[in-house]
Amino acid sequence: MGKLYGIGVGPGDSDLLTIRAVKTLEKLDVLYTPQAKKGGYSTAMNIVSEYLRDDLVIKERHFPMNYRDDEKIEAWDIISNEIESDVKDGLNVGFITLGDPMIYSTYVYILERLIDRIEVKTIPGISSFVNISSSNNFPLAMDMESLAVVSCTDDIGRIVEYMDNFDCLVLMKVYKNFKDIVGLIIDKGLNDKAIMVSNSSMASEVVYEDLASLMELDVVPYFSTILINKKWKIK
Amino acid sequence: MGKLYGIGVGPGDSDLLTIRAVKTLEKLDVLYTPQAKKGGYSTAMNIVSEYLRDDLVIKERHFPMNYRDDEKIEAWDIISNEIESDVKDGLNVGFITLGDPMIYSTYVYILERLIDRIEVKTIPGISSFVNISSSNNFPLAMDMESLAVVSCTDDIGRIVEYMDNFDCLVLMKVYKNFKDIVGLIIDKGLNDKAIMVSNSSMASEVVYEDLASLMELDVVPYFSTILINKKWKIK
Repeated sequence: MGKLYGIGVGPGDSDLLTIRAVKTLEKLDVLYTPQAKKGGYSTAMNIVSEYLRDDLVIKERHFPMNYRDDEKIEAWDIISNEIESDVKDGLNVGFITLGDPMIYSTYVYILERLIDRIEVKTIPGISSFVNISSSNNFPLAMDMESLAVVSCTDDIGRIVEYMDNFDCLVLMKVYKNFKDIVGLIIDKGLNDKAIMVSNSSMASEVVYEDLASLMELDVVPYFSTILINKKWKIK
Repeated sequence: MGKLYGIGVGPGDSDLLTIRAVKTLEKLDVLYTPQAKKGGYSTAMNIVSEYLRDDLVIKERHFPMNYRDDEKIEAWDIISNEIESDVKDGLNVGFITLGDPMIYSTYVYILERLIDRIEVKTIPGISSFVNISSSNNFPLAMDMESLAVVSCTDDIGRIVEYMDNFDCLVLMKVYKNFKDIVGLIIDKGLNDKAIMVSNSSMASEVVYEDLASLMELDVVPYFSTILINKKWKIK
């Protein structure tokens, strides 16, 4: 019997892979990689490419981003069965995922199907918001302050509650209602306690130190994240 | 002018260092390391030791764990001035910190003092709760569920509120009032949606799958963390 390795490859730079991820990549027989669109470019694949064996079998698959409907559930079932079969053939199988495998990753749909059927090892990675924090010298949470990681697709009333109750917040997926969110931040006097970063660790990265400037924009990139830290004095 | 590098060294295993952390450690002239007690053992130092240059100057310093009083503020001021002086002498100076430098690390006390005085690069790391999640194949957060990272030193009423409002929780510092916390988890029917891990990634690591078993204990280790995920079906 082989094993399945779920490998977090970090936010974008190859040098944010862990040593364990690199060592694991080097011993794989088969690698399943996400193909966002047919023939599309895989960021995760680009991050790991320098560490792969020449004789590695690469299986590009389309991984649906969620499984709300039957068609998507079927797609995850098929991929899981394929992986199970490879592992039972004695192969070391890898599944790469951007950031950390356990934070908002589709890897969990594989994990929940296979955890009782084959041996699964999961290797943690640097998630995007953790990287944004370090890259910008903007702490996520100090002392023992509570930290909320929230999707802005959540109910706006709840987001207001989180902003009032938590000193430290990570606001993900701000692209849809960014004017509402930024408006809230300004109204609550938190503009000088917040930053927004779009396309973190990509060539197109933009850091917004003054969130008020966002109110003049019509759209912001899909990958945009706001960090708030009420206790951090320096921005 | 040199630079200050704040380096997250991960939870305990050397192979959870990132490539960037290793490359940075290899080019340091001076390394400031925490000395928890006088002559005490430094876990962070142990993690990085194999990657250090033979001619590296190691400056063991006592870093107070918080700075609530004047004595501690003075200690942080002294260490920061020393680092500033080394950097202005043209040296590459490292400061290592367990887990991630931006999540509950004393590194931010150095950062807030020096960020306007010298160049500071912060290198992210795998934090302890991220590692616990992957090691136990227990997802932190799926889809776009909100995640709360909470210290159990917080007001118990607020902890109850967090447990009701969030699908995914990380409960840190459970050692003091672990019976209250575990009691709450059981009362809310969340025992089969939770795990506790003590001394993660150390030789003395213990994983508690059944939190009810904790009610028979008098104490639990200082480094104990509970993960809750209401949407995760398999434990």
